[in-house]
Amino acid sequence: MSELRRDPVDGRWVIIAPDQRKRPVDFYTAPYPATEGPCPFCPGHESVTPAEILARRDPGSRANGPGWRVRVIPNMFPVLRVEDELRREGRGYYDKMSGTGAHEVIIESPRHDDRHATMSEALLEEVFWVCRERMLDLRQDRRIQYVLVFKNYGTAAGANLEHPHSQLIALPILPKKLIEETEGAREYFRHHERCIFCDIVSQEVEEESRLISANEDFIAIVPWAPIYPFEIWILPRRHQPRFEEPTDRLYARFAQILAEVTRRLERALTRPHYNAVLHTSPFTDKHREYFHWHLELMPRLTRRAGFEVGSGFYVNPIPPEDAAQFLRQTEIAG
Amino acid sequence: MSELRRDPVDGRWVIIAPDQRKRPVDFYTAPYPATEGPCPFCPGHESVTPAEILARRDPGSRANGPGWRVRVIPNMFPVLRVEDELRREGRGYYDKMSGTGAHEVIIESPRHDDRHATMSEALLEEVFWVCRERMLDLRQDRRIQYVLVFKNYGTAAGANLEHPHSQLIALPILPKKLIEETEGAREYFRHHERCIFCDIVSQEVEEESRLISANEDFIAIVPWAPIYPFEIWILPRRHQPRFEEPTDRLYARFAQILAEVTRRLERALTRPHYNAVLHTSPFTDKHREYFHWHLELMPRLTRRAGFEVGSGFYVNPIPPEDAAQFLRQTEIAG
Repeated sequence: MSELRRDPVDGRWVIIAPDQRKRPVDFYTAPYPATEGPCPFCPGHESVTPAEILARRDPGSRANGPGWRVRVIPNMFPVLRVEDELRREGRGYYDKMSGTGAHEVIIESPRHDDRHATMSEALLEEVFWVCRERMLDLRQDRRIQYVLVFKNYGTAAGANLEHPHSQLIALPILPKKLIEETEGAREYFRHHERCIFCDIVSQEVEEESRLISANEDFIAIVPWAPIYPFEIWILPRRHQPRFEEPTDRLYARFAQILAEVTRRLERALTRPHYNAVLHTSPFTDKHREYFHWHLELMPRLTRRAGFEVGSGFYVNPIPPEDAAQFLRQTEIAG
Repeated sequence: MSELRRDPVDGRWVIIAPDQRKRPVDFYTAPYPATEGPCPFCPGHESVTPAEILARRDPGSRANGPGWRVRVIPNMFPVLRVEDELRREGRGYYDKMSGTGAHEVIIESPRHDDRHATMSEALLEEVFWVCRERMLDLRQDRRIQYVLVFKNYGTAAGANLEHPHSQLIALPILPKKLIEETEGAREYFRHHERCIFCDIVSQEVEEESRLISANEDFIAIVPWAPIYPFEIWILPRRHQPRFEEPTDRLYARFAQILAEVTRRLERALTRPHYNAVLHTSPFTDKHREYFHWHLELMPRLTRRAGFEVGSGFYVNPIPPEDAAQFLRQTEIAG
């Protein structure tokens, strides 16, 4: 028996249709195609990439040479450029804007075959501090409304290179999903004087059925109305509007739970490809009460999202309670 | 140089980033995997499927036997069921609803390897009349708010069977995209007292740069702010809120333009997989002024939509004017 569930934040409905599991669900976990030629992100090949914007380096190492742990470079094929002046223009009934912004790559480890599931928590934490530094820098540019930080892991998730990296796109507009989330959260706050994400955290901790893991500062859940099978949200337990304003030890605990969750995911589903997207309060939003940053992680196990993007109608064959139980029971080392 | 464009109806922004074309854009057009065993949709195998709901048959042929041209059956693995009573329920901060609705398959041709591009226009027109008949029937059920008609062509678009078919899902809610479109169109009407789709038609006819094809009753365009490369919209020239209320000869002309456009697409991009979604005014919406039915056709050439679904942020490497020109200049027989 299927049921429809409503996402409490953005309001979309998803059909949870467990009967679908009887069909040959094509959960594919294709390996990366072998990289042709030398990897441009590996140490020693720094001259192949654009000059670094920022790097965390060992003492004595020099910019654009080896010796880094985390390295940020401009994307070689940027979708937006910081040099372009921001122009807005109408054309009949249509609106457009210049492609002004920034597009950067965060190389997360010197090791070519590292993954979130294999990286040390200390290195993951360092990646978060680097992200934060870039966000604080870009936020000074008044043309920028949002910095979208995301990771495509695996070809099914849109990655071209195996070497572990995330991307950062600074936008002169808010991505639609963020508009929907902030509007939904604002409306909820208006009615209840509470942050909806704080309420989600308390309900999930109490119900336990969708909880995957928790530590002092975070919980990891399969959300109530997930679009993707095995979709995972990691949320701070306490109210935090912005990722880039961490409290003491927060990033260390975020690293701990992200490492654990990705290890569970790798073990449970034989290293699935996935997308991860950081959701944080827009720079332009001065209200701090209703938004609560979090990470959404979407495994790319099925190929059904295309038609669904066109209709806004989603079917998920795996009930989130089953997915959470499966991930919770997956045994991982240490 | 990239630019941001806003969809005039639902308000989302898309980055048109032609620089991306320099990258190895993985436009894949994988063939269908060979069907294992006999095709359940082929004539002679009617007993393998659930009993037909409706069929257009040759004189003298019997229900659930061969001799049909178009045949509608319940989906064997329905995501919603009409037998389920509609129950709404809250659970803490969350909302859910029973999986009440219908899920049907329209087998569009007796020929296993037929496609929209190869079917006769007369048969395509008959498929539209069958669609209409099912919509009129389902619309009598007061629990149903919307009937979503869509086609997944090819494995990359989510199809499991090669035999030409569309699907129909009757929903107790409105799909999110339809809510956004009706709200956008209503808002536009409130300001201008005009249908936004009528304005789009007139601007596209005047500008010509995104026009692919036109006949007396329809235009086919690449829209101003497409999410997908080579996305195509087919719109009636004159104001028509609902697909299921056709004027004289309308379906014949819709068949003509759809056949032509899919032939162009097949020729230009070596038979790409695609999703097509019919957008029509919801049954529950009594206002007839602002919505305008149309078909959206989304080729599945890239694998990038996953992260984009999660963020609502889209990048399209092919400017719509280039896509339209390419399709317009593709030579097709007839």
